[in-house]
Amino acid sequence: MADGLQMSRRIRRTPYTDRVEALGVRGFSVVNHTLLPKAFQHSVEDDYWHLRTNVQLWDVGCQRQIELRGPDAAKLIQWMTPRDIGSAHVGDCVYTPLIDRDGYLFNDPILIKLAADHFWLSIADSDVELYALGLATGAGLDVSVREADIWPLAVQGPLAEDLIAGLFGESLRSVRYFKTAWIDVEGTPCLIARSGYSGQGGFELYAEAAIGPRLWDTLWAAGQHLGIRPGCPNLIDRIETGLLSFGNEMTRANHPLECGLARWCDLDADINCLGLDALRRIAKEGSRNRMCGVAFSAPTDRVCAQPWPVSVDGERVGQLTSAIHSPRRHAHVGLGILATHAATIGQTVSVQLPDGTEGRGTVQPLPFPDTD
Amino acid sequence: MADGLQMSRRIRRTPYTDRVEALGVRGFSVVNHTLLPKAFQHSVEDDYWHLRTNVQLWDVGCQRQIELRGPDAAKLIQWMTPRDIGSAHVGDCVYTPLIDRDGYLFNDPILIKLAADHFWLSIADSDVELYALGLATGAGLDVSVREADIWPLAVQGPLAEDLIAGLFGESLRSVRYFKTAWIDVEGTPCLIARSGYSGQGGFELYAEAAIGPRLWDTLWAAGQHLGIRPGCPNLIDRIETGLLSFGNEMTRANHPLECGLARWCDLDADINCLGLDALRRIAKEGSRNRMCGVAFSAPTDRVCAQPWPVSVDGERVGQLTSAIHSPRRHAHVGLGILATHAATIGQTVSVQLPDGTEGRGTVQPLPFPDTD
Repeated sequence: MADGLQMSRRIRRTPYTDRVEALGVRGFSVVNHTLLPKAFQHSVEDDYWHLRTNVQLWDVGCQRQIELRGPDAAKLIQWMTPRDIGSAHVGDCVYTPLIDRDGYLFNDPILIKLAADHFWLSIADSDVELYALGLATGAGLDVSVREADIWPLAVQGPLAEDLIAGLFGESLRSVRYFKTAWIDVEGTPCLIARSGYSGQGGFELYAEAAIGPRLWDTLWAAGQHLGIRPGCPNLIDRIETGLLSFGNEMTRANHPLECGLARWCDLDADINCLGLDALRRIAKEGSRNRMCGVAFSAPTDRVCAQPWPVSVDGERVGQLTSAIHSPRRHAHVGLGILATHAATIGQTVSVQLPDGTEGRGTVQPLPFPDTD
Repeated sequence: MADGLQMSRRIRRTPYTDRVEALGVRGFSVVNHTLLPKAFQHSVEDDYWHLRTNVQLWDVGCQRQIELRGPDAAKLIQWMTPRDIGSAHVGDCVYTPLIDRDGYLFNDPILIKLAADHFWLSIADSDVELYALGLATGAGLDVSVREADIWPLAVQGPLAEDLIAGLFGESLRSVRYFKTAWIDVEGTPCLIARSGYSGQGGFELYAEAAIGPRLWDTLWAAGQHLGIRPGCPNLIDRIETGLLSFGNEMTRANHPLECGLARWCDLDADINCLGLDALRRIAKEGSRNRMCGVAFSAPTDRVCAQPWPVSVDGERVGQLTSAIHSPRRHAHVGLGILATHAATIGQTVSVQLPDGTEGRGTVQPLPFPDTD
């Protein structure tokens, strides 16, 4: 019981929380003041195998949607991100690191363009609404900023397409990665995107609260013959796929260039991002650190609740911020920021574990190379 | 295990988390992405009696300090709060509801004035740093905004003064409510305030992380002869005292006038708060709702994880957002916003409980009248 979570209204439930409780959820995390299921009846490892071969239904309602709407909506978003969003089309999803005036990250949402003046930011764990509203207010922009009544559900795994096509139409098989379509859920339009926080493919459905529970029930019932399970972002899969987590791999102390996000920073573009000059200066000086994968031996089942120091020949070169045992490689896998001089594929490193022992391993590319 | 909290770096530990774990903490909540202990070995009721007669040490490091410093710091704070902060002196604590341009709340921190151009906001559960930084960036203000490396510890209860005076000097007995002093902790200056999130009196110490664990140990050791216990904000005491919780009693959907915060809104002052005109309009129209206490019979030990509807003669008039059994009044006590026409002391109401039954009770003043 040392890790019991005390419930209150402040820890918000989603339209699906009743459903995951009925299915025996065993633990939660809290993201954006909202419950995120973290474990069901099976182990993380067992759910990992299932996710790689089957289909899972995830309550990711905690991915709150910040809606920006109005004549200055696109301008406000471009002010916050170093990625050029000018070429995005209506219906596109765009991964957008958000940076402050000094070039430091404060979130890394998926931007969804609903219209030229209408966007959702599907956010990681920080109050993007407050930054965007402060910025709009301070600069007198003509844009509304609010948290929308939209609660994502993820359908992940290789059988996700069969489930979605069977329920909502074969044409959905042709929706490409980070593209969207509209489906009809009992008369209510619902956006569906080919996306999700796993490496196994699938869809995310952006449902209003009013249709959320029935949409869950529909997906759950139709998935029975496919062997569907309730699930959640799987830590083994997330690390192997190199999917970062704001608050874990990167914090307010990090800029995107050291987080492996340089390819989404259009440093040479003619865009007005308020932190771009700062980021250009950092780039010119050369980033001293780099996001890495590490595979290592670690006879521990402790979670990485605090960073695990990483060293080379006794010299501290960085830290892992997420780590877990991977059954496919019979070793631990971890993510973390290492000094550039140590961040070369194959570099031998030591990881200091919370039980006082050391794990030995090597730096890996991201995503981790497949072992099959 | 249905309510297990999954740990990760994103759920931040405080400098005191090791200490509360060693003392057998049984549960946490998450506030500002940070752990807040919520239960130790005794029941909430037992800890309530202890808090009223003794002294407790609370890890309230989750009350993060947002530091605003620079020529425009005072201006930026006044932009965010309808309370006139012009008369605050260096060393004062000031309760400051924060509102957006539409008059709606986004936090209700304690403002601590360290110098004319240097403030801390000791915040409730939302990213005030992001709003303040967005506003400063959008308006081009000359002010730095950051989360400071300061982690509050609370010493609460009637014996708190004896503990603090014994350790840090008799002169601290003369520190008045919401006033501060500086103490020396092993060579490091540490701010101490007569304040805290209980109705039983006490102090809050604003410690740097580097001295935090030793400060905890010093207080814990010196408190042994007084019968000190580890504790946390006590829900019975909090409700009876009428202490509101942002995210529970009030959300982004509420303005301060319906939350019982009118006395901290200087509607007639000549100040530049960006939401003041909106708040004046709301005041002119007349607030339709009012924050109330309710005492009621409720044979349930369920927590108020979702609002409990309140009705009068079958008509829904509002909801309770926090509630728990009070042993002193042999009834449940709750807080919530009710329609003005129902918000009169003594009004009979029905509370719809999560088990499907109804509790009967009456509207109470805040704080709840003492029963002793």
